[in-house]
Amino acid sequence: MTSPAERRAHVVGLGLIGASVALALSERGWRVTGEDADADVAGRARATGVVAEGDLDATVTLCVVATPAGAVVDAARAALAAGSERLVVTDVAGVKASIVAALDDARFVGGHPMAGSERRGLEGARADLFSGCTWVLTPTEATAPATYGFLHGVWRDLGANVIAVPALDHDRLVAVASHVPHLLAGALMNEAADAAEQDAVLLQLAAGGFRDMTRVAAGDPSIWPDVLFENRAAVQASLAALEGRLTRLRRALETGDRSALSGDLHSAALARRRLPGRALHPEELAYLRVAVSDQPGVLATVTRTASEALVNIYDIEIAHGIEGTSGTLLLAVEASRAAEFADALVARGFEVGRE
Amino acid sequence: MTSPAERRAHVVGLGLIGASVALALSERGWRVTGEDADADVAGRARATGVVAEGDLDATVTLCVVATPAGAVVDAARAALAAGSERLVVTDVAGVKASIVAALDDARFVGGHPMAGSERRGLEGARADLFSGCTWVLTPTEATAPATYGFLHGVWRDLGANVIAVPALDHDRLVAVASHVPHLLAGALMNEAADAAEQDAVLLQLAAGGFRDMTRVAAGDPSIWPDVLFENRAAVQASLAALEGRLTRLRRALETGDRSALSGDLHSAALARRRLPGRALHPEELAYLRVAVSDQPGVLATVTRTASEALVNIYDIEIAHGIEGTSGTLLLAVEASRAAEFADALVARGFEVGRE
Repeated sequence: MTSPAERRAHVVGLGLIGASVALALSERGWRVTGEDADADVAGRARATGVVAEGDLDATVTLCVVATPAGAVVDAARAALAAGSERLVVTDVAGVKASIVAALDDARFVGGHPMAGSERRGLEGARADLFSGCTWVLTPTEATAPATYGFLHGVWRDLGANVIAVPALDHDRLVAVASHVPHLLAGALMNEAADAAEQDAVLLQLAAGGFRDMTRVAAGDPSIWPDVLFENRAAVQASLAALEGRLTRLRRALETGDRSALSGDLHSAALARRRLPGRALHPEELAYLRVAVSDQPGVLATVTRTASEALVNIYDIEIAHGIEGTSGTLLLAVEASRAAEFADALVARGFEVGRE
Repeated sequence: MTSPAERRAHVVGLGLIGASVALALSERGWRVTGEDADADVAGRARATGVVAEGDLDATVTLCVVATPAGAVVDAARAALAAGSERLVVTDVAGVKASIVAALDDARFVGGHPMAGSERRGLEGARADLFSGCTWVLTPTEATAPATYGFLHGVWRDLGANVIAVPALDHDRLVAVASHVPHLLAGALMNEAADAAEQDAVLLQLAAGGFRDMTRVAAGDPSIWPDVLFENRAAVQASLAALEGRLTRLRRALETGDRSALSGDLHSAALARRRLPGRALHPEELAYLRVAVSDQPGVLATVTRTASEALVNIYDIEIAHGIEGTSGTLLLAVEASRAAEFADALVARGFEVGRE
């Protein structure tokens, strides 16, 4: 939809993610400028060609805020105020609810690329960091479908598997899938380190399983307090649930309740073996067409309906006519749940067709 | 010390470990017979040449009890009663204190090879399973140095890194390094499975770290209740300590105590980065010679002294004269702790020299 001349991006924050976005967009023909709170970093990014000279001017159509989570809202507000009507602003922070709640603008959609690297900062950046990664977008009532559609296309062009999830669900899910596992790995490593202080031979007994479980604890710890405090409600709830599970396992050992122990270990083994290696295969997906008006709120309603119906949306495309007053959403969902989801959408007043 | 004609072993229990021991010993010229509580398994082991026809007769010098932990004591007692004076009996169970306490015989020493495999049972057996693995031996007051020295040589000949640890320490350490991590992986997987039931997109957000942390939970769960109940005291203590750590992390989030959170994550990162990849390099070891009488109890005193002095014994060799009334232990310890350990041994009345 944007002509080559319009492919202008500006990145705020040139750490690992921001600089990788800049490199990836440049590789695809975008002109990318950037800034960083650290003038040294910004200088090195320009000197090494990661970003070009320039500011967030009126030609910029995409501004990516890649600052630490605590600085996102201010940076995004500044970009929305400085940019044109056509500007789309997004962020890449690991927590979303508090950020998207503070940015009530049709031109903004929150995002979180689930990409990591052993390396950190500008020097760790790679143009292919997002290839194959899951990139979550969290549209709200305020988000214009055109904003979402544009950004979806850009990130998919970088090789990402883009999915839409309500921001609160995102935060709850990353608490379970990422934040609490990180705390757990740290607690286990500290427990072992204390034991090893009494008996260094422990370190020889720490075989593959222990190494696997504590590997993430070796990562740069400085980014975590921010992330954890930003997502504290979800992390606290998930930690409390896990403490409860461990207490029940300990009680089962105390009382000799072999069946409780055995049941828990069996259900965990089943669940772990079912964990998909990657995204679903295309043949496991079904596509629904949903006629929508180009009104803010429509994407949030669709994703909330999916969440309530326990259906996972693997992809949302804006099929056509999105610049006008109506359009069509093309939704990819698990084939086995497609009929149920279509019913739920019809019950909300949507017109739904099957591809 | 044993002539080729005397290299006769008998394996009780032909699962993964027992059958792998049989294959590894056969490859090194031993004649290996075996038995299994399951007549089908025993038949297949003989038919496929894993073990030869024959019983625990008077020519057997090594009996390896590789049954489930709960059956070890009875099987080992039967072997000690049936075997000759020269017979050495050992086991391979994952818990040691209760077993070695019940087997008060100079010809017995408990053991635990820290080797695992994705495969299970007789059909998963491999002659090279123990190459490079840590093999713990747990000599007691009752164990004759000759018994220990013989077994140490046999397992080292299979490529194992043999270390001596008091049985109670072993159990406490595997609780931290293996049993509790397994329970933790299971609890985390179950927590995530419950969340995924409400929102299947979780499975897409479960990236590398989560996969690493839950990998061990996919293993065969049927062996675990036995192992956990056998080691219940140590597992309960370690689980309780870990619950306490998680509760403190949750409180730190609640009260906004950033420095507590940050301190825990930093110490975990440091400890994880220090986790040695494998055993120490030879140049990091120092060797002490300790003159000992060939009396039961001497090995237990030496290993207990090491444990109390926070020194890890990487190797114990019986240098010579062990069949007589006195001999020399050659102890490999961390070079940085060698002087301190020598002092601790001298304080116990040992005569200590440095290699």
